[in-house]
Amino acid sequence: MTQSAKIKIAIVGASGYTGLELARLLATHPQADVVAVTSEQNPGVAYDRFFPGLRGFVSPHLTLSAIGQKDQQGKWPGLDSLLKKAEVFFTALPHGTSTECVNYLYEKGARIIDLSADFRLKNLEVYEAWYGQHTAAHLVPEAVYGIPEFHRADMKKTRIIANPGCYPTSAIFALAPLLKHELIDTKTIVIDSKSGTSGAGRTAKQNILFSEISEGIRAYGVAHHRHTPEIEQELSSLAGHDIRVTFTPHLVPMHRGILTVAYGQLKDLKTDAQILELYRAFYKNECYVRVTDELPDSRNVRGSYFVDLSVRIDARTQRVIAISTIDNLNRGASGQAIAGFNLMMGFDEGLGLNHPPLLP
Amino acid sequence: MTQSAKIKIAIVGASGYTGLELARLLATHPQADVVAVTSEQNPGVAYDRFFPGLRGFVSPHLTLSAIGQKDQQGKWPGLDSLLKKAEVFFTALPHGTSTECVNYLYEKGARIIDLSADFRLKNLEVYEAWYGQHTAAHLVPEAVYGIPEFHRADMKKTRIIANPGCYPTSAIFALAPLLKHELIDTKTIVIDSKSGTSGAGRTAKQNILFSEISEGIRAYGVAHHRHTPEIEQELSSLAGHDIRVTFTPHLVPMHRGILTVAYGQLKDLKTDAQILELYRAFYKNECYVRVTDELPDSRNVRGSYFVDLSVRIDARTQRVIAISTIDNLNRGASGQAIAGFNLMMGFDEGLGLNHPPLLP
Amino acid sequence: MTQSAKIKIAIVGASGYTGLELARLLATHPQADVVAVTSEQNPGVAYDRFFPGLRGFVSPHLTLSAIGQKDQQGKWPGLDSLLKKAEVFFTALPHGTSTECVNYLYEKGARIIDLSADFRLKNLEVYEAWYGQHTAAHLVPEAVYGIPEFHRADMKKTRIIANPGCYPTSAIFALAPLLKHELIDTKTIVIDSKSGTSGAGRTAKQNILFSEISEGIRAYGVAHHRHTPEIEQELSSLAGHDIRVTFTPHLVPMHRGILTVAYGQLKDLKTDAQILELYRAFYKNECYVRVTDELPDSRNVRGSYFVDLSVRIDARTQRVIAISTIDNLNRGASGQAIAGFNLMMGFDEGLGLNHPPLLP
Amino acid sequence: MTQSAKIKIAIVGASGYTGLELARLLATHPQADVVAVTSEQNPGVAYDRFFPGLRGFVSPHLTLSAIGQKDQQGKWPGLDSLLKKAEVFFTALPHGTSTECVNYLYEKGARIIDLSADFRLKNLEVYEAWYGQHTAAHLVPEAVYGIPEFHRADMKKTRIIANPGCYPTSAIFALAPLLKHELIDTKTIVIDSKSGTSGAGRTAKQNILFSEISEGIRAYGVAHHRHTPEIEQELSSLAGHDIRVTFTPHLVPMHRGILTVAYGQLKDLKTDAQILELYRAFYKNECYVRVTDELPDSRNVRGSYFVDLSVRIDARTQRVIAISTIDNLNRGASGQAIAGFNLMMGFDEGLGLNHPPLLP
Repeated sequence: MTQSAKIKIAIVGASGYTGLELARLLATHPQADVVAVTSEQNPGVAYDRFFPGLRGFVSPHLTLSAIGQKDQQGKWPGLDSLLKKAEVFFTALPHGTSTECVNYLYEKGARIIDLSADFRLKNLEVYEAWYGQHTAAHLVPEAVYGIPEFHRADMKKTRIIANPGCYPTSAIFALAPLLKHELIDTKTIVIDSKSGTSGAGRTAKQNILFSEISEGIRAYGVAHHRHTPEIEQELSSLAGHDIRVTFTPHLVPMHRGILTVAYGQLKDLKTDAQILELYRAFYKNECYVRVTDELPDSRNVRGSYFVDLSVRIDARTQRVIAISTIDNLNRGASGQAIAGFNLMMGFDEGLGLNHPPLLP
Repeated sequence: MTQSAKIKIAIVGASGYTGLELARLLATHPQADVVAVTSEQNPGVAYDRFFPGLRGFVSPHLTLSAIGQKDQQGKWPGLDSLLKKAEVFFTALPHGTSTECVNYLYEKGARIIDLSADFRLKNLEVYEAWYGQHTAAHLVPEAVYGIPEFHRADMKKTRIIANPGCYPTSAIFALAPLLKHELIDTKTIVIDSKSGTSGAGRTAKQNILFSEISEGIRAYGVAHHRHTPEIEQELSSLAGHDIRVTFTPHLVPMHRGILTVAYGQLKDLKTDAQILELYRAFYKNECYVRVTDELPDSRNVRGSYFVDLSVRIDARTQRVIAISTIDNLNRGASGQAIAGFNLMMGFDEGLGLNHPPLLP
Repeated sequence: MTQSAKIKIAIVGASGYTGLELARLLATHPQADVVAVTSEQNPGVAYDRFFPGLRGFVSPHLTLSAIGQKDQQGKWPGLDSLLKKAEVFFTALPHGTSTECVNYLYEKGARIIDLSADFRLKNLEVYEAWYGQHTAAHLVPEAVYGIPEFHRADMKKTRIIANPGCYPTSAIFALAPLLKHELIDTKTIVIDSKSGTSGAGRTAKQNILFSEISEGIRAYGVAHHRHTPEIEQELSSLAGHDIRVTFTPHLVPMHRGILTVAYGQLKDLKTDAQILELYRAFYKNECYVRVTDELPDSRNVRGSYFVDLSVRIDARTQRVIAISTIDNLNRGASGQAIAGFNLMMGFDEGLGLNHPPLLP
Repeated sequence: MTQSAKIKIAIVGASGYTGLELARLLATHPQADVVAVTSEQNPGVAYDRFFPGLRGFVSPHLTLSAIGQKDQQGKWPGLDSLLKKAEVFFTALPHGTSTECVNYLYEKGARIIDLSADFRLKNLEVYEAWYGQHTAAHLVPEAVYGIPEFHRADMKKTRIIANPGCYPTSAIFALAPLLKHELIDTKTIVIDSKSGTSGAGRTAKQNILFSEISEGIRAYGVAHHRHTPEIEQELSSLAGHDIRVTFTPHLVPMHRGILTVAYGQLKDLKTDAQILELYRAFYKNECYVRVTDELPDSRNVRGSYFVDLSVRIDARTQRVIAISTIDNLNRGASGQAIAGFNLMMGFDEGLGLNHPPLLP
């Protein structure tokens, strides 16, 4: 296939880590051609000077532009000029501000993979309780929650993919077999997740300085993190009834990686071997999910698209402990977005994603 | 008080991190004089060459000796020579091997703060289920589990203190007010702990190389960690009935620090303010326990003796989330051992321990 | 000595890492009473909430105040109110802005240890070439460059100490014996220094986020770092003639520590043993300088006031390689400032500074 | 090209980081088929259980074997069985022990890329002064020192490539333009290099434990590191006369990356712009060398094959400061070995190596 036949892509919001990860992965994707990148703060900067590590992987002429705002006539020049260049848009804008942009692009016929939280929650009441008013509620039904392993068929048919959050992705993979097989008392689910700092973004904030992160660990957003309803939506769907969970995220002194440990009370005691076999069977057709005897280590997925999973029984308390790990920027954000793009365009789901992890 | 009046101390097992931390803290303790240090692998090495950072804080004549073994006549020359020099022994030997040594020292009239797990579990059946046969079972009743805040009176009267494990210390502080006040269903306790790597020791092992730890997180010992029965013993004692918990430890890429997040189902819903007030009241006389509105950060206790604590309610699930953090080497091991020494000798509990944390 | 007899101290600029390190060290200094702390950005915040790790070590009533600005009548209310409370001022303001503040305090009779660069350079032309115009040039002769080992006598007699920079401190200790003994060709000096990130400050900047620092190393300020003339001033003074050096700083993914490797061409070849002996002799009366056979490791001074030093000969090229390490916040900033305070007040030089390093 | 047409490869010594990096990179190399991996310590272990991160990238049937030793009849069964399977051998054995193995394989007609130091030094006297006796000296002339940018033509024609050391690679790129253009006094070269810990290997050693590395920096091998003669050989060749350098390596708390800062006295003063232009011209045909205006950051090459370079003039001392950075495992070891394989086999030099760096 010639260069000209590649899909023209715009990354809207390319100055953060998810934008960088999209650019990194798309640089070697055989069907992608990133033709536009945007940043409201850094218009005019060549992208390979903005991220010098990308030199040689993006055109030296690829330059950050600003999308600006919609004008009073309802036109949005910054997006219109992108629409002339690109047919698929990865929108990685701050949660909330992306709604209007996605709506505009959708109206103009574009295909969108949205990395914000705006189109993930199907229940508007829930959305508004956690995020405030929704400005493009009519699009919510069209958007498909983009975990291929759970929504593959729908992802192939939509023009908007709501790319899942990093914590929800890890939690859903850990708990899905238990819920699908109705093995646990769904009132007893506790999800304890640990994330690297790239999940906290690239904006200069004192509390994520190296000197404030290294050699320490802390929980945050306890009992109030916005990924909670997203986790609950997908778990409820798997279980067939409404589920509420306790979810605790932590910040760990590392760049990449989420390790999620999920706890639940078993209805009937199982052995480690039985539960592992059940997980293996559940994911047996999924080549990007690796169920292992050994406990997962986030290092084994760093830089890769894999979900590594294992599970144990605490026989003394009849509790199951499911452990998953993903790279928060790859499977937890940009990699999964590209899988969504692949499905939407009819490509092989893992095209451009099949990289081994960087070890060590 | 003159130099000669200080208490003569031997550190038996001084080549690891707990030994180093004892030496570091005792170096500026006004009543302590470390007169002997031992290491089976490094006899004859001056201690300030073994740990060059200690140069100037220990005598250049303080040299590592080996304790060797008991002979066939039941004499133990390596310990006998220590008994001539020292009156108090901090034993930081590998779990199991320290039993015989402690027994010998005790028989000879010494005072012992034992940092192994050998004398922590009061129920011998439990001990043997987790550790194997006990070779000095008759001493177990004499040993006092050494968290000052919970066993202060007994610690003052004993000649053997069983210094608590790092994870149990953090978990017990987090959960004690809930159990004492009977606020939670004790069948629902989940304890998820994250530790720095110094807890894994100083012995050369491939899985704790920098290149195998940095930029990663992993759980280990899931459902089987030996600190579980120790946590259960103390929580059961606080609750007044037998409790079983699920306990999951993790290894985090940092030197020092444990962050423990403990979950339990509340019998009656409370507010954050109510539960915080209850915690504050519970620890109000304890100057080394800091109950804070803010969520704890392990960095705030690094190098110090403090326990930092906070607690939250997840109203949506009626669950309480108690979070504690300690320095695993200081409060989680050597600092608490020194508090035990202080109590045993009639000194002020915090003598030599009142250092601010090292930030950043 | 009673509490009331302690010296009342104000830390002007207490929200950064040098301020925090001053507070940490002064908290256990037997003659210091920190009565005021300032921050222009955070007035009104209790200091032990601003730095929760300090809880229990500073009064809960110690609250950050703003110093504001001098008014048109030449009065400075923010400083006047401090002058009523405190007699000694540690000024840790951004370089340049502190000049006027120091001048005002000096005029009012206060004693000042200034942690900025404003009073370090004795040659005004040099100062202005690197920093711009000096607004209190008349005070420069009064200020004493505050490395006790080299300016002890003068430090005892002054009311202004210009506290040295972190890199210069490490470089001067490494090279002093070579220059004093005229062992090297002074045109051949290359100084290659590596620093932890706390030296880059606590202000939110993107390039010092954890995600931008961890797992990387970079040089910065190559051939243009402002510590160059400060190093040259002191080395020239030791050599008795003007010296120019090449100085390259680096940012290393760690909190604390500077390792400086200094190179020079030997006039006459020496052995390792000879040069080590010469260093030992040079520093033989200095208890906070540890000359060791082993190569220094920055970890061995972390959190401490020590300078660790060693030196090697590259016989093949007749070059000497002198290596020093310090804690950039302690000996490289706040610890040395407290030594200056001690000397100025007639206390023992190391009062409150004799802490062992935190290992690991 | 079909699967069967790929080149059959054996990795002899596959349990360390260079072996892992070879396996990682070859897993997605379009012309490589790794058919054998060896480890003397772990025979019989499936390679994707040995390195679980590789699961899905190597055959589940690829199992570590031991090569054992040559027997008294001069047969080497362990290698003979490999020779039946593979035609190209990457030998990543400890320096010294690989000599005999390479010799045996060469005699049997195999092609070899040797990652040890054994065939790098062309002058046997120099080799023996630094490494001891050479047991296959007759092969040294046949071996080509494998930096493509400097020895491309010879690499295409040989059956043995001596893969360069990590430090030498970084130093040679930094200094080559200066030497080729005779811009510096070659008696003044100082090379100060900083490396991540993966360069220290994967063998369990106490001094590279996380707890002994994190939060610290130290120099090692000062004036005696074995990469010195290797650097000198190549620099001498570029200069056309014998050169001796001072070389100082450091261990930095990060996985991957080397930053080398090289200093030299300019014969004639140049500007930054002039020297940068000269570097750009020197490397203008090399697509894996990125000469940048900005100072290099090791993070920008992590996981990649690139050499990033910049250069500055210290006009005050007429010194040039050349800075290079590479990934020590990729360009500094396994990546460059694969480039050597590519050249040897007639493939495109960068085949399978054109990956962007992993950021952050």
